[in-house]
Amino acid sequence: MKMLINVPESVVPDALRGMALAHPELTVDVEKRLVVRRDAPVAGKVALVSGGGSGHEPLHGGFVGPGMLDAACPGEIFTSPVPDQMVSAAAAVDSGEGVLFVVKNYTGDVLNFDMAAELAEDEGVRVAKVLVQDDVAVTDSTFTAGRRGTGATLFVEKIAGALAAKGAGLERVEAVARQVADSSRSFGVALSACTTPSKGTPTFDLPAGELELGIGIHGEPGRERRAMMTSGEIADFAVDAVLKDLHPDGPVLALVNGMGGTPLLELYGFCAEVHRVLGERRVPVARTLVGNYVTSLDMAGASVTLCRVDEELLRLWDAPVRTPGLCWGV
Amino acid sequence: MKMLINVPESVVPDALRGMALAHPELTVDVEKRLVVRRDAPVAGKVALVSGGGSGHEPLHGGFVGPGMLDAACPGEIFTSPVPDQMVSAAAAVDSGEGVLFVVKNYTGDVLNFDMAAELAEDEGVRVAKVLVQDDVAVTDSTFTAGRRGTGATLFVEKIAGALAAKGAGLERVEAVARQVADSSRSFGVALSACTTPSKGTPTFDLPAGELELGIGIHGEPGRERRAMMTSGEIADFAVDAVLKDLHPDGPVLALVNGMGGTPLLELYGFCAEVHRVLGERRVPVARTLVGNYVTSLDMAGASVTLCRVDEELLRLWDAPVRTPGLCWGV
Repeated sequence: MKMLINVPESVVPDALRGMALAHPELTVDVEKRLVVRRDAPVAGKVALVSGGGSGHEPLHGGFVGPGMLDAACPGEIFTSPVPDQMVSAAAAVDSGEGVLFVVKNYTGDVLNFDMAAELAEDEGVRVAKVLVQDDVAVTDSTFTAGRRGTGATLFVEKIAGALAAKGAGLERVEAVARQVADSSRSFGVALSACTTPSKGTPTFDLPAGELELGIGIHGEPGRERRAMMTSGEIADFAVDAVLKDLHPDGPVLALVNGMGGTPLLELYGFCAEVHRVLGERRVPVARTLVGNYVTSLDMAGASVTLCRVDEELLRLWDAPVRTPGLCWGV
Repeated sequence: MKMLINVPESVVPDALRGMALAHPELTVDVEKRLVVRRDAPVAGKVALVSGGGSGHEPLHGGFVGPGMLDAACPGEIFTSPVPDQMVSAAAAVDSGEGVLFVVKNYTGDVLNFDMAAELAEDEGVRVAKVLVQDDVAVTDSTFTAGRRGTGATLFVEKIAGALAAKGAGLERVEAVARQVADSSRSFGVALSACTTPSKGTPTFDLPAGELELGIGIHGEPGRERRAMMTSGEIADFAVDAVLKDLHPDGPVLALVNGMGGTPLLELYGFCAEVHRVLGERRVPVARTLVGNYVTSLDMAGASVTLCRVDEELLRLWDAPVRTPGLCWGV
């Protein structure tokens, strides 16, 4: 598999050097592997820190900025960052109002963020944590005990980030972040496997004419493999899998997310099918976001994330955000 | 090649239905194939209309909104829209201050926008046109007499859109659009060919271990084929090709653009190499944009576009923009 890289070993620091050059509004520490708002710490504001393996861009570094994250800690590809990164991030962004760690549910991330929380608290930083575990496809995967954290991470980071920007305290930001995480479910499909730079070949073998249902974001196997389906059939399957677990009784936020290798043109068409299914199931869609946001390198495919929302969550979703990866209304 | 679609024939209208659902701030007419600002016509403002074949998303429909385009006309995939679309778009957005057509230099687009300009003027709309022809790779391609219009289209639409938003008249907006077009050059490379839904197989055959230098945005062949190169070698080649033609004597805007199938992680690493080469050539980079903006369906690869800028163009570049595909500072 051909890649636009120099050598596999330097893909992550090379990308961070590029981020630093393209985004002067961020402080990118290539050595320590940190992406931080340049104006951090923001006085009087609870800070949000997230992170995880690289390969899911723009998540998380691309979500650093006003109205979303204060800092992100990128690990190696599909590999958790280390506690030192998280402790440095917390120290860089804490204004004294405390720090919320947004953690996707993968074994390494959970352990490292737990350790970092203890270390940061030893240094006098108040830390709260929220665990994102929205993927209904599989329980216990190669990388996870319990459900995987995927697309809902964007909802948690955006909504909790907006609440923190409005000046809410740490307990309140943590509670709303948890509400969003608990109210969100995802399901993804792959039309192709992804290729990591170090391996250089696809992470699993997906024959021509088949797709993988219930894929995660690390090239790990999904729930089942079937003969290729239409966009409409995939929407039926994915939305049904989400609704079976979510049981919304009111409006939802919808994320129609590309895995990295699927053109935006196809994602918009898939969005129309997702709306059709939700209409048939009498689920009102309050807002829809379409694009490549929580990706898996060059994987072709898409995921659907739905989040039950009330008036307050919707106002926070609509609030201004200005980051490299997500921007509106500011 | 597997795609997230229903049938090839309906890919464009399906995507437009999805755009309409995801973007209530736009008026999307699926029948007439138009994407228009919901608040159009904006009183007292020169309007910008662009369009071209689909398959390059977010270009052009994703660039409709405050600070950029007033309307876009999507054609079938890699096929010019028809004059009726452009005439309808002009009528929908003209406030009486006139309309600028931003036209990429492809034979079909040029003919159809010319015809539309005549028809619109017959209906009393003042129309100016700017031709974008920035690709230094080849002269006269499958689709073009002269140079192809590629990444510079984004620069023209953003900068002329900002000037129109500030209230400048049609002649001035046209002149600055032409200045940006004339001051911009691009060069692209492909690591894989793209696959159109109607054909279902790659548009050209690129063996494992080779890349195509000087690729366009329609899967047409490039300038030459070589054994796979590193990101640094590609940056050397692409930036040199652009600089040989552009001869900047001051700062440039840089667009490091993905062709659709290359992960953002790789694009940021490539951005670092593009900056390295520009530094070695003593070309100061005023601003850098990195991402998938002027794409070619699922093609893997990237292009570099540079634009010579003065203080005024930089201020217009930095001015607020709020569209689905490009947003900042608003």
